[in-house]
Amino acid sequence: MNFSSKLLEDAVAEFARLPGVGQKTALRLVLHLLNQDKIDVERFSATISKLRNEIQFCRVCLNISDSPVCQICASPKRDHSIICVVEDTRDVMAIENTNQYNGVYHVLGGLISPMDGIGPSDLEVDSLIERIKENETKEIIFALSATMEGDTTLFYLNKRLKNFTITISTIARGIAFGGELEYVDEVTLGRSIVTRVPYEKTIT
Amino acid sequence: MNFSSKLLEDAVAEFARLPGVGQKTALRLVLHLLNQDKIDVERFSATISKLRNEIQFCRVCLNISDSPVCQICASPKRDHSIICVVEDTRDVMAIENTNQYNGVYHVLGGLISPMDGIGPSDLEVDSLIERIKENETKEIIFALSATMEGDTTLFYLNKRLKNFTITISTIARGIAFGGELEYVDEVTLGRSIVTRVPYEKTIT
Repeated sequence: MNFSSKLLEDAVAEFARLPGVGQKTALRLVLHLLNQDKIDVERFSATISKLRNEIQFCRVCLNISDSPVCQICASPKRDHSIICVVEDTRDVMAIENTNQYNGVYHVLGGLISPMDGIGPSDLEVDSLIERIKENETKEIIFALSATMEGDTTLFYLNKRLKNFTITISTIARGIAFGGELEYVDEVTLGRSIVTRVPYEKTIT
Repeated sequence: MNFSSKLLEDAVAEFARLPGVGQKTALRLVLHLLNQDKIDVERFSATISKLRNEIQFCRVCLNISDSPVCQICASPKRDHSIICVVEDTRDVMAIENTNQYNGVYHVLGGLISPMDGIGPSDLEVDSLIERIKENETKEIIFALSATMEGDTTLFYLNKRLKNFTITISTIARGIAFGGELEYVDEVTLGRSIVTRVPYEKTIT
Protein backbone atom coordinates (compact mmCIF):
# COMPACT_ATOMS: atom_id res chain seq x y z
CA MET A 1 0.00 0.00 0.00
CA ASN A 2 0.96 3.55 -0.75
CA PHE A 3 0.71 5.50 2.50
CA SER A 4 0.74 9.28 2.53
CA SER A 5 1.95 9.30 6.13
CA LYS A 6 4.52 7.38 8.17
CA LEU A 7 2.35 7.68 11.29
CA LEU A 8 -0.53 6.10 9.40
CA GLU A 9 1.70 3.36 8.00
CA ASP A 10 3.09 2.52 11.46
CA ALA A 11 -0.36 2.33 13.02
CA VAL A 12 -1.67 0.09 10.23
CA ALA A 13 1.37 -2.19 10.62
CA GLU A 14 0.72 -2.49 14.37
CA PHE A 15 -2.95 -3.39 13.90
CA ALA A 16 -2.11 -5.84 11.11
CA ARG A 17 0.00 -7.78 13.63
CA LEU A 18 -3.18 -8.75 15.52
CA PRO A 19 -4.58 -12.21 14.74
CA GLY A 20 -7.17 -12.20 11.97
CA VAL A 21 -6.50 -8.57 11.03
CA GLY A 22 -5.14 -7.93 7.52
CA GLN A 23 -3.86 -4.70 5.97
CA LYS A 24 -7.28 -3.56 4.75
CA THR A 25 -9.02 -4.18 8.08
CA ALA A 26 -6.11 -2.52 9.90
CA LEU A 27 -6.48 0.57 7.71
CA ARG A 28 -10.22 0.66 8.38
CA LEU A 29 -9.63 0.48 12.15
CA VAL A 30 -6.93 3.16 12.06
CA LEU A 31 -9.08 5.55 9.99
CA HIS A 32 -11.90 4.92 12.46
CA LEU A 33 -9.61 5.92 15.35
CA LEU A 34 -8.56 9.07 13.46
CA ASN A 35 -12.21 10.09 13.34
CA GLN A 36 -12.63 9.70 17.10
CA ASP A 37 -12.03 12.36 19.74
CA LYS A 38 -8.45 12.63 20.99
CA ILE A 39 -9.54 11.78 24.53
CA ASP A 40 -11.21 8.55 23.41
CA VAL A 41 -8.15 7.39 21.48
CA GLU A 42 -5.93 8.33 24.42
CA ARG A 43 -8.09 6.18 26.72
CA PHE A 44 -7.92 3.28 24.23
CA SER A 45 -4.13 3.54 24.10
CA ALA A 46 -3.80 3.88 27.89
CA THR A 47 -6.11 0.91 28.56
CA ILE A 48 -3.95 -1.37 26.41
CA SER A 49 -0.73 -0.25 28.05
CA LYS A 50 -2.24 -0.55 31.53
CA LEU A 51 -3.63 -4.00 30.81
CA ARG A 52 -0.27 -5.43 29.82
CA ASN A 53 1.68 -3.75 32.61
CA GLU A 54 -0.69 -4.24 35.52
CA ILE A 55 -2.33 -7.56 34.81
CA GLN A 56 -1.62 -10.30 37.32
CA PHE A 57 -2.15 -14.01 37.37
CA CYS A 58 -3.78 -15.57 40.44
CA ARG A 59 -0.99 -17.37 42.32
CA VAL A 60 -3.36 -20.24 43.13
CA CYS A 61 -5.21 -21.03 39.88
CA LEU A 62 -3.13 -18.86 37.46
CA ASN A 63 -6.23 -17.24 35.99
CA ILE A 64 -6.05 -13.59 34.92
CA SER A 65 -6.71 -11.44 37.96
CA ASP A 66 -6.46 -7.91 39.31
CA SER A 67 -5.18 -9.13 42.68
CA PRO A 68 -2.56 -11.70 43.77
CA VAL A 69 -5.38 -14.19 44.47
CA CYS A 70 -8.41 -14.14 42.15
CA GLN A 71 -12.00 -13.65 43.28
CA ILE A 72 -12.88 -17.31 42.74
CA CYS A 73 -9.92 -18.66 44.72
CA ALA A 74 -10.50 -16.09 47.48
CA SER A 75 -14.20 -16.89 47.83
CA PRO A 76 -15.18 -18.99 50.88
CA LYS A 77 -18.43 -19.90 49.09
CA ARG A 78 -16.63 -22.00 46.48
CA ASP A 79 -15.80 -25.67 47.01
CA HIS A 80 -12.00 -25.70 47.09
CA SER A 81 -11.83 -29.51 47.06
CA ILE A 82 -12.92 -29.69 43.41
CA ILE A 83 -10.51 -28.33 40.80
CA CYS A 84 -11.55 -27.90 37.18
CA VAL A 85 -8.51 -27.97 34.87
CA VAL A 86 -8.86 -25.75 31.78
CA GLU A 87 -6.69 -24.48 28.95
CA ASP A 88 -7.10 -20.73 29.38
CA THR A 89 -9.09 -17.82 30.78
CA ARG A 90 -11.73 -18.08 28.06
CA ASP A 91 -12.70 -21.53 29.33
CA VAL A 92 -13.04 -20.23 32.90
CA MET A 93 -15.35 -17.49 31.59
CA ALA A 94 -17.40 -19.99 29.56
CA ILE A 95 -17.89 -22.33 32.55
CA GLU A 96 -18.63 -19.44 34.94
CA ASN A 97 -21.32 -18.25 32.53
CA THR A 98 -23.19 -21.55 32.91
CA ASN A 99 -23.65 -21.00 36.68
CA GLN A 100 -23.43 -24.79 37.07
CA TYR A 101 -20.02 -25.08 38.73
CA ASN A 102 -19.11 -24.13 42.27
CA GLY A 103 -15.56 -25.49 42.54
CA VAL A 104 -12.30 -23.73 41.71
CA TYR A 105 -10.12 -23.74 38.58
CA HIS A 106 -6.59 -24.40 37.42
CA VAL A 107 -5.49 -22.68 34.23
CA LEU A 108 -2.86 -24.70 32.34
CA GLY A 109 -1.98 -21.87 29.96
CA GLY A 110 -2.16 -24.08 26.89
CA LEU A 111 -2.28 -27.70 25.75
CA ILE A 112 0.52 -30.12 24.93
CA SER A 113 1.21 -29.71 21.20
CA PRO A 114 4.48 -31.15 19.85
CA MET A 115 3.69 -29.56 16.45
CA ASP A 116 3.84 -26.09 18.04
CA GLY A 117 6.75 -27.04 20.32
CA ILE A 118 4.62 -26.93 23.48
CA GLY A 119 5.59 -29.65 25.96
CA PRO A 120 4.37 -30.42 29.50
CA SER A 121 7.05 -28.14 30.99
CA ASP A 122 5.50 -25.14 29.23
CA LEU A 123 2.22 -25.71 31.06
CA GLU A 124 1.26 -25.18 34.68
CA VAL A 125 1.39 -28.89 35.53
CA ASP A 126 3.80 -28.82 38.47
CA SER A 127 1.79 -26.10 40.16
CA LEU A 128 -1.29 -28.31 39.80
CA ILE A 129 0.49 -31.28 41.40
CA GLU A 130 1.73 -29.06 44.26
CA ARG A 131 -1.76 -27.74 44.76
CA ILE A 132 -3.25 -31.22 45.00
CA LYS A 133 -0.52 -32.31 47.44
CA GLU A 134 -0.94 -29.32 49.74
CA ASN A 135 -4.73 -29.16 49.78
CA GLU A 136 -7.47 -31.65 50.45
CA THR A 137 -8.46 -32.09 46.85
CA LYS A 138 -11.22 -34.63 46.30
CA GLU A 139 -11.86 -34.33 42.57
CA ILE A 140 -10.17 -33.10 39.43
CA ILE A 141 -12.46 -32.33 36.48
CA PHE A 142 -10.76 -32.01 33.11
CA ALA A 143 -12.56 -29.53 30.84
CA LEU A 144 -10.23 -29.63 27.85
CA SER A 145 -11.00 -29.38 24.13
CA ALA A 146 -11.87 -32.65 22.38
CA THR A 147 -8.90 -32.28 20.02
CA MET A 148 -5.68 -34.20 19.58
CA GLU A 149 -3.90 -31.65 21.82
CA GLY A 150 -6.63 -31.88 24.46
CA ASP A 151 -6.53 -35.67 24.46
CA THR A 152 -2.72 -35.75 24.67
CA THR A 153 -2.77 -33.35 27.62
CA LEU A 154 -5.50 -35.39 29.30
CA PHE A 155 -3.48 -38.61 28.83
CA TYR A 156 -0.34 -37.01 30.26
CA LEU A 157 -2.06 -35.42 33.25
CA ASN A 158 -3.96 -38.61 34.04
CA LYS A 159 -0.63 -40.45 34.23
CA ARG A 160 0.87 -37.80 36.51
CA LEU A 161 -2.17 -37.95 38.82
CA LYS A 162 -2.61 -41.72 39.09
CA ASN A 163 -0.82 -41.98 42.47
CA PHE A 164 -3.21 -39.60 44.16
CA THR A 165 -6.39 -40.90 45.79
CA ILE A 166 -8.69 -38.46 44.05
CA THR A 167 -11.58 -38.77 41.63
CA ILE A 168 -10.59 -37.85 38.09
CA SER A 169 -13.39 -37.01 35.66
CA THR A 170 -13.83 -35.24 32.35
CA ILE A 171 -16.76 -33.16 31.15
CA ALA A 172 -19.35 -35.22 29.27
CA ARG A 173 -19.09 -35.46 25.50
CA GLY A 174 -22.15 -36.18 23.45
CA ILE A 175 -24.84 -34.74 21.30
CA ALA A 176 -25.60 -31.09 21.99
CA PHE A 177 -29.01 -30.18 23.37
CA GLY A 178 -31.25 -29.41 20.43
CA GLY A 179 -28.94 -31.33 18.09
CA GLU A 180 -30.53 -33.68 15.58
CA LEU A 181 -29.06 -37.17 15.35
CA GLU A 182 -28.74 -37.26 11.58
CA TYR A 183 -26.42 -34.24 11.51
CA VAL A 184 -24.11 -35.45 14.29
CA ASP A 185 -20.69 -36.76 13.25
CA GLU A 186 -20.10 -40.46 13.64
CA VAL A 187 -17.43 -40.23 16.35
CA THR A 188 -19.60 -38.13 18.64
CA LEU A 189 -22.65 -40.31 18.03
CA GLY A 190 -20.64 -43.50 18.59
CA ARG A 191 -19.10 -42.20 21.81
CA SER A 192 -22.46 -40.99 23.07
CA ILE A 193 -23.80 -44.56 22.76
CA VAL A 194 -20.77 -46.10 24.48
CA THR A 195 -20.89 -43.58 27.34
CA ARG A 196 -24.68 -43.71 27.69
CA VAL A 197 -26.10 -42.72 31.09
CA PRO A 198 -29.03 -44.19 33.06
CA TYR A 199 -32.19 -42.22 32.29
CA GLU A 200 -32.82 -41.45 35.97
CA LYS A 201 -29.52 -39.58 36.10
CA THR A 202 -30.63 -37.17 33.38
CA ILE A 203 -33.63 -35.96 35.38
CA THR A 204 -32.41 -33.32 37.77
CA MET B 1 -19.41 -12.01 29.89
CA ASN B 2 -18.05 -12.88 33.29
CA PHE B 3 -14.61 -11.26 33.53
CA SER B 4 -12.18 -12.22 36.24
CA SER B 5 -10.41 -8.88 35.93
CA LYS B 6 -11.48 -5.26 35.57
CA LEU B 7 -8.39 -4.52 33.46
CA LEU B 8 -9.37 -7.31 31.09
CA GLU B 9 -12.97 -6.12 30.96
CA ASP B 10 -11.93 -2.53 30.20
CA ALA B 11 -9.58 -3.60 27.43
CA VAL B 12 -12.23 -5.84 25.84
CA ALA B 13 -14.76 -2.99 26.00
CA GLU B 14 -12.30 -0.65 24.25
CA PHE B 15 -11.60 -3.12 21.45
CA ALA B 16 -15.31 -3.93 21.07
CA ARG B 17 -15.87 -0.23 20.25
CA LEU B 18 -13.94 -0.67 16.98
CA PRO B 19 -16.05 -1.22 13.85
CA GLY B 20 -16.68 -4.88 13.05
CA VAL B 21 -15.22 -6.08 16.36
CA GLY B 22 -17.60 -7.88 18.73
CA GLN B 23 -17.06 -9.04 22.31
CA LYS B 24 -15.60 -12.42 21.34
CA THR B 25 -13.16 -10.98 18.79
CA ALA B 26 -12.21 -8.26 21.26
CA LEU B 27 -11.43 -10.88 23.91
CA ARG B 28 -9.33 -12.85 21.42
CA LEU B 29 -7.33 -9.72 20.51
CA VAL B 30 -6.83 -8.75 24.15
CA LEU B 31 -5.66 -12.24 25.14
CA HIS B 32 -3.30 -12.14 22.17
CA LEU B 33 -1.83 -8.86 23.44
CA LEU B 34 -1.43 -10.37 26.92
CA ASN B 35 0.74 -13.08 25.38
CA GLN B 36 3.03 -10.56 23.70
CA ASP B 37 6.15 -9.00 25.19
CA LYS B 38 5.59 -5.88 27.26
CA ILE B 39 7.74 -3.81 24.91
CA ASP B 40 5.66 -4.83 21.87
CA VAL B 41 2.39 -3.93 23.57
CA GLU B 42 3.87 -0.64 24.75
CA ARG B 43 4.86 0.18 21.16
CA PHE B 44 1.34 -0.71 19.94
CA SER B 45 -0.19 1.57 22.55
CA ALA B 46 2.28 4.41 21.87
CA THR B 47 1.78 4.20 18.09
CA ILE B 48 -1.98 4.67 18.46
CA SER B 49 -1.61 7.61 20.80
CA LYS B 50 1.05 9.22 18.58
CA LEU B 51 -1.06 8.72 15.45
CA ARG B 52 -4.05 10.57 16.85
CA ASN B 53 -2.03 13.37 18.44
CA GLU B 54 0.50 14.06 15.71
CA ILE B 55 -1.39 13.38 12.49
CA GLN B 56 -1.85 16.36 10.20
CA PHE B 57 -4.01 17.06 7.21
CA CYS B 58 -2.41 18.59 4.13
CA ARG B 59 -3.55 22.22 4.01
CA VAL B 60 -3.92 22.03 0.22
CA CYS B 61 -5.69 18.71 -0.49
CA LEU B 62 -6.70 17.75 3.11
CA ASN B 63 -5.25 14.28 2.76
CA ILE B 64 -3.60 12.66 5.81
CA SER B 65 -0.01 13.84 5.98
CA ASP B 66 3.02 14.05 8.26
CA SER B 67 3.80 17.58 7.14
CA PRO B 68 1.69 20.75 6.60
CA VAL B 69 1.72 20.06 2.84
CA CYS B 70 1.59 16.43 1.70
CA GLN B 71 4.15 14.78 -0.57
CA ILE B 72 1.80 14.79 -3.56
CA CYS B 73 0.89 18.48 -3.28
CA ALA B 74 4.55 19.41 -2.67
CA SER B 75 5.84 17.46 -5.68
CA PRO B 76 6.83 19.57 -8.73
CA LYS B 77 6.51 16.42 -10.86
CA ARG B 78 2.71 16.26 -10.43
CA ASP B 79 0.31 18.13 -12.68
CA HIS B 80 -1.30 20.67 -10.35
CA SER B 81 -3.87 21.75 -12.95
CA ILE B 82 -5.81 18.48 -12.62
CA ILE B 83 -7.59 17.83 -9.33
CA CYS B 84 -9.12 14.43 -8.55
CA VAL B 85 -11.93 14.77 -5.98
CA VAL B 86 -12.28 11.76 -3.66
CA GLU B 87 -14.17 10.82 -0.52
CA ASP B 88 -11.27 9.87 1.77
CA THR B 89 -7.64 8.80 2.15
CA ARG B 90 -8.38 5.22 1.14
CA ASP B 91 -9.41 6.42 -2.32
CA VAL B 92 -6.18 8.41 -2.71
CA MET B 93 -4.22 5.27 -1.81
CA ALA B 94 -6.23 3.14 -4.24
CA ILE B 95 -5.68 5.57 -7.14
CA GLU B 96 -1.99 6.05 -6.29
CA ASN B 97 -1.56 2.26 -6.38
CA THR B 98 -2.67 2.19 -10.02
CA ASN B 99 0.26 4.46 -11.08
CA GLN B 100 -2.08 5.87 -13.76
CA TYR B 101 -2.68 9.33 -12.36
CA ASN B 102 -0.24 12.20 -12.21
CA GLY B 103 -2.46 15.05 -11.02
CA VAL B 104 -3.26 16.12 -7.48
CA TYR B 105 -6.17 15.30 -5.14
CA HIS B 106 -8.82 16.93 -3.04
CA VAL B 107 -10.19 14.91 -0.11
CA LEU B 108 -13.81 15.78 0.68
CA GLY B 109 -13.83 13.91 4.00
CA GLY B 110 -17.12 12.16 3.25
CA LEU B 111 -20.14 12.21 0.95
CA ILE B 112 -23.44 14.06 1.24
CA SER B 113 -25.78 11.75 3.14
CA PRO B 114 -28.96 13.25 4.58
CA MET B 115 -29.72 9.90 6.26
CA ASP B 116 -26.53 10.24 8.35
CA GLY B 117 -26.97 13.98 8.78
CA ILE B 118 -24.01 14.86 6.54
CA GLY B 119 -24.65 17.96 4.47
CA PRO B 120 -22.41 19.92 2.04
CA SER B 121 -21.15 22.12 4.88
CA ASP B 122 -19.61 19.06 6.59
CA LEU B 123 -17.45 18.39 3.55
CA GLU B 124 -14.42 20.23 2.21
CA VAL B 125 -16.36 21.89 -0.61
CA ASP B 126 -15.52 25.55 0.04
CA SER B 127 -11.82 24.75 0.19
CA LEU B 128 -12.14 23.06 -3.23
CA ILE B 129 -13.85 26.14 -4.72
CA GLU B 130 -11.16 28.41 -3.22
CA ARG B 131 -8.49 26.16 -4.64
CA ILE B 132 -9.96 26.27 -8.15
CA LYS B 133 -10.31 30.07 -7.95
CA GLU B 134 -6.75 30.65 -6.79
CA ASN B 135 -4.97 28.18 -9.08
CA GLU B 136 -5.01 27.55 -12.79
CA THR B 137 -7.13 24.43 -12.61
CA LYS B 138 -7.95 22.90 -15.98
CA GLU B 139 -9.80 19.77 -15.01
CA ILE B 140 -11.70 18.29 -12.09
CA ILE B 141 -12.07 14.50 -12.06
CA PHE B 142 -14.69 13.11 -9.73
CA ALA B 143 -13.73 9.68 -8.38
CA LEU B 144 -16.67 9.06 -6.05
CA SER B 145 -18.51 5.85 -5.22
CA ALA B 146 -21.35 4.86 -7.55
CA THR B 147 -23.86 5.01 -4.68
CA MET B 148 -26.76 7.27 -3.88
CA GLU B 149 -24.46 9.36 -1.64
CA GLY B 150 -21.78 9.54 -4.33
CA ASP B 151 -24.29 10.60 -6.98
CA THR B 152 -25.85 13.22 -4.71
CA THR B 153 -22.43 14.69 -3.93
CA LEU B 154 -21.54 14.68 -7.63
CA PHE B 155 -24.78 16.47 -8.52
CA TYR B 156 -24.20 19.11 -5.85
CA LEU B 157 -20.54 19.71 -6.72
CA ASN B 158 -21.31 19.89 -10.43
CA LYS B 159 -23.83 22.66 -9.72
CA ARG B 160 -21.30 24.57 -7.59
CA LEU B 161 -18.67 24.30 -10.33
CA LYS B 162 -20.76 25.17 -13.39
CA ASN B 163 -19.60 28.82 -13.53
CA PHE B 164 -15.95 27.87 -13.84
CA THR B 165 -14.43 27.31 -17.27
CA ILE B 166 -12.93 23.93 -16.42
CA THR B 167 -13.41 20.41 -17.72
CA ILE B 168 -15.44 18.28 -15.33
CA SER B 169 -15.20 14.51 -15.73
CA THR B 170 -15.94 11.40 -13.73
CA ILE B 171 -14.08 8.10 -13.71
CA ALA B 172 -15.50 5.60 -16.20
CA ARG B 173 -18.12 3.13 -15.02
CA GLY B 174 -18.55 -0.14 -16.81
CA ILE B 175 -17.79 -3.80 -16.78
CA ALA B 176 -14.66 -4.73 -14.89
CA PHE B 177 -11.74 -6.17 -16.83
CA GLY B 178 -12.10 -9.94 -16.73
CA GLY B 179 -15.79 -9.59 -15.91
CA GLU B 180 -18.19 -11.85 -17.76
CA LEU B 181 -21.28 -10.20 -19.23
CA GLU B 182 -23.81 -12.68 -17.91
CA TYR B 183 -22.87 -11.95 -14.28
CA VAL B 184 -22.94 -8.18 -14.57
CA ASP B 185 -25.92 -6.36 -13.05
CA GLU B 186 -28.37 -4.76 -15.48
CA VAL B 187 -27.71 -1.15 -14.49
CA THR B 188 -23.96 -1.45 -15.08
CA LEU B 189 -24.45 -3.31 -18.36
CA GLY B 190 -27.07 -0.80 -19.53
CA ARG B 191 -24.85 2.18 -18.67
CA SER B 192 -21.85 0.57 -20.33
CA ILE B 193 -23.81 0.37 -23.60
CA VAL B 194 -25.05 3.96 -23.34
CA THR B 195 -21.57 5.30 -22.56
CA ARG B 196 -19.80 3.09 -25.13
CA VAL B 197 -16.44 4.35 -26.40
CA PRO B 198 -14.94 4.22 -29.93
CA TYR B 199 -12.79 1.11 -30.27
CA GLU B 200 -9.71 3.15 -31.32
CA LYS B 201 -9.82 4.93 -27.98
CA THR B 202 -9.45 1.67 -26.07
CA ILE B 203 -6.13 0.83 -27.76
CA THR B 204 -3.43 2.74 -25.95
